[in-house]
Amino acid sequence: MKVPPPLSKFVEIFSALPGIGPRQAIRLAFFFVEQGVAFENEVAKTILALKGIKTCRQCFYIHQNESGLCNICSDKNRNQNLIAIVEKETDLMSIENIGQFSGRYLILGDLKKTGVLETGQKLRLNSLKDWIRKEQDGKIEEIIVALNPSLQGELMTNLIAEEFKGLTGKISRLGRGIPSGGEIEFADEETLGSALKRRE
Amino acid sequence: MKVPPPLSKFVEIFSALPGIGPRQAIRLAFFFVEQGVAFENEVAKTILALKGIKTCRQCFYIHQNESGLCNICSDKNRNQNLIAIVEKETDLMSIENIGQFSGRYLILGDLKKTGVLETGQKLRLNSLKDWIRKEQDGKIEEIIVALNPSLQGELMTNLIAEEFKGLTGKISRLGRGIPSGGEIEFADEETLGSALKRRE
Repeated sequence: MKVPPPLSKFVEIFSALPGIGPRQAIRLAFFFVEQGVAFENEVAKTILALKGIKTCRQCFYIHQNESGLCNICSDKNRNQNLIAIVEKETDLMSIENIGQFSGRYLILGDLKKTGVLETGQKLRLNSLKDWIRKEQDGKIEEIIVALNPSLQGELMTNLIAEEFKGLTGKISRLGRGIPSGGEIEFADEETLGSALKRRE
Repeated sequence: MKVPPPLSKFVEIFSALPGIGPRQAIRLAFFFVEQGVAFENEVAKTILALKGIKTCRQCFYIHQNESGLCNICSDKNRNQNLIAIVEKETDLMSIENIGQFSGRYLILGDLKKTGVLETGQKLRLNSLKDWIRKEQDGKIEEIIVALNPSLQGELMTNLIAEEFKGLTGKISRLGRGIPSGGEIEFADEETLGSALKRRE
């Protein structure tokens, strides 16, 4: 059944957004039409207001500063010798929220299933390498590759470790083990093995 | 961790959309920022273009006609004596797509878990009653209550049947049975019972 062009355009654009499929896109379209013009205006305004947000030229997290650096990267009290490489902004936020990490970050961007680094990801890693060479005399103390403990994450962690050889004293990854509230009975072999090895 | 106000506003608005939670809203926000200004402009434009779409004053489906009626309701060849009451626009589209229904529709709007008709739904049913009284001399041939065969759908079907007593010759609902490609082994008791009773 044919739908009016503005609706099919909406479905085309929205079903290309992460996590939204064609069924949800059409559901959203009808929802917008039903809510009416004032609502449509508000949502459009909310999207356009995002224009004021930029990404940090150092770590690629968001900010609104004139300097081009996010609040974390502009904070002189952060340890410049300790860098956590994370996949997503929300991973950075989760680590920041526990308030136990004093270094700064590099956001790599979504890991692809291909298991290889994308051009944009290589550029980000290169910008970190350049910074270590120019601003840190060619070496920092530690890089924590804080990627999800999936097969992809493992592959990427090894790739990144290889890339930063010689530029960092230490390359580490997040500890594996039974999560708080988790049950030993349901832990997979690898998790349980790691938990046993890293017992404390 | 605090995020810039435009981002938290975005998350607030988007997590209130149907089927989008706070986690997906923040993911979308970062996606928009990463895509940049041109993309944000395009999405906003796409939403604002929905303004041209109206809802039919008779069946509440969408349209872009000056008359206030959708393409189905303005089609003189459709059977005015046969009305299908559906829950959602997408239900109407599914029925239209099989090309076997010659009547017109009434979209009721999302059924709520409360099992009672909402004010807006009552108004829609009343507008259909008024139309039957004024335009159809007080009686049409058949109303098909085409709601999902859930507990809610059942309740609502009975409510609606009660409402239209005397205004229609017949009240029917969609046939129950084993769906094409379905397996008898996995059919629930009610479905199997209906399939047996309505064997053809």
